[in-house]
Amino acid sequence: MLSAGFRPSLKEFTAAAAAIAEDAIQTPLLPFRASPSGEIRLKAENLQQLGSFKIRAGANALAMLADADAAAGVATASAGNFAQGLALAAARRRIKLTVHAPSTAPAVKLAAIQALGALVETHSYSDWWQIMSTRHTGRADGHFIHPVCEDAVLLGNGTIALELTRQWNRIDTVCVPVGGGGLLCGIALAFRALGARPRIVACEVATAAPLTRSREAGRPVSIQRQPSFVDGIGGGGVLEEMWPLLQELVDSVVVVSLDEIRDAMRFLALESHLICEGAGAASVAAALSGRAGSGNCVAVVSGGNIDLPVFTSVVCPES
Amino acid sequence: MLSAGFRPSLKEFTAAAAAIAEDAIQTPLLPFRASPSGEIRLKAENLQQLGSFKIRAGANALAMLADADAAAGVATASAGNFAQGLALAAARRRIKLTVHAPSTAPAVKLAAIQALGALVETHSYSDWWQIMSTRHTGRADGHFIHPVCEDAVLLGNGTIALELTRQWNRIDTVCVPVGGGGLLCGIALAFRALGARPRIVACEVATAAPLTRSREAGRPVSIQRQPSFVDGIGGGGVLEEMWPLLQELVDSVVVVSLDEIRDAMRFLALESHLICEGAGAASVAAALSGRAGSGNCVAVVSGGNIDLPVFTSVVCPES
Repeated sequence: MLSAGFRPSLKEFTAAAAAIAEDAIQTPLLPFRASPSGEIRLKAENLQQLGSFKIRAGANALAMLADADAAAGVATASAGNFAQGLALAAARRRIKLTVHAPSTAPAVKLAAIQALGALVETHSYSDWWQIMSTRHTGRADGHFIHPVCEDAVLLGNGTIALELTRQWNRIDTVCVPVGGGGLLCGIALAFRALGARPRIVACEVATAAPLTRSREAGRPVSIQRQPSFVDGIGGGGVLEEMWPLLQELVDSVVVVSLDEIRDAMRFLALESHLICEGAGAASVAAALSGRAGSGNCVAVVSGGNIDLPVFTSVVCPES
Repeated sequence: MLSAGFRPSLKEFTAAAAAIAEDAIQTPLLPFRASPSGEIRLKAENLQQLGSFKIRAGANALAMLADADAAAGVATASAGNFAQGLALAAARRRIKLTVHAPSTAPAVKLAAIQALGALVETHSYSDWWQIMSTRHTGRADGHFIHPVCEDAVLLGNGTIALELTRQWNRIDTVCVPVGGGGLLCGIALAFRALGARPRIVACEVATAAPLTRSREAGRPVSIQRQPSFVDGIGGGGVLEEMWPLLQELVDSVVVVSLDEIRDAMRFLALESHLICEGAGAASVAAALSGRAGSGNCVAVVSGGNIDLPVFTSVVCPES
């Protein structure tokens, strides 16, 4: 659950960092671009095992479980990176996990979750969304862990800010891709717990920018999303439960185009030798756009899970 | 110059690490594969600026220059990564650099060196090889820095071992791609200075394995190399000056096939989200082959400089 008015202390984030030390690596902060007005550096979460920051959240969610809950097993609703991260952390702790996924999820992703030892149950998309919203799976499959709206998830994601503070003592801006908002809110809350206030820039893609639309409307709204190779951000709306935190913690939103994301992915491949997914490169695109402000900027490269043929067609379209 | 009987102390390696701290990053050691018999982890030097470990050597070579030599400018003979690393380090220190390159070098590489502010002089391949062998450029272009046979170069490369020792305290084997041998000898000498003796495995590619042939012959021999996408290792012979060190420091050689390197590059892309050049993946191929021995193994991923269309054709041949 996400506690009302959740404002965790530094001690809570430090405990999360200790709890996930065997599961997640401390990702490097890589130099990327420098200009007289400031530098851009990359927090390369795509280098985590399974290719995304989600292992931080999954591992911490299990670390914070009561013993009785762990013994009874846990359940989640996710089709992607969070389920994989949770499945890896669960396998290491020998905790039984049931993953509820939409039947529309790619078979290869479901197979990867099963290969990590989790039980996968598929549902129609509307039934699955119902589970996401209500946390009721209709089964006695144990304690439900939400992929975003969960204290433990925000604490796990916030460990990124603890590392950033040690890695660079002159951060003006942090660009974070925003989907559910768990990554952004975790990082922003941890900076506040540290007594730091870098500008927090939420990065959305033009084909699906529900946070921008919700800020305009002054409330969480649903939008029509346009599918693209950017599948890790840009959902159909803002989660009600996350809206108060997003309103408080986001300093500005930068909406980047698919072309800007393509360019960022190409630069990351050519200059930094990193394979990034579209969502992971959205923060880099925002930092490069000039629309995130001046000064020293961290772009959080959230993940690298993209099919190689898709990656190839984006960074090397002539081949 | 490479001093006769060069056996540097830990203090010398520590000084090199301090000297290059502004130029090179401490690259991460990434988990890659685990089995009951041991783990393989990746020392990701492809994440260095300019995409290879060479920045360590270039920066340290300039740091160790006498002031008078620095004021007069420096020269080197290289067509690739070393010249780029040296050029970047020289630009940062405002030291004049002349790079002597073979006219066969790719124009794009020469342009990159010039863009970093260095003067490029091209020569016929035989004239260039003469410069590499004699260190006489025929010009008054200052102190000559050899890309391999140089105390400062081995010290710079050896800083990798200092980081490895902090990153993992249970290293049984270190797999290192071997071209000139500067990377391998630097790392092996630093481990000795640290009082550690992991098994040092030199990794060659089947299309050009001069170290294997030289070890069979008991002396440095020239070979006929077969060109391939693996262009960072596999020269036409072993450098006379490096032979005594290579004989002493190499515990075994593993020769990997082009197919094994292709597989390693694909695994690195899919599982680790890294773009690696063929030479950089040779160490990973050796570690995966089972022929490097058992236990915990570090594969030094030396670089990531590969044209994207070539990378694409290797890791994603169906596209």
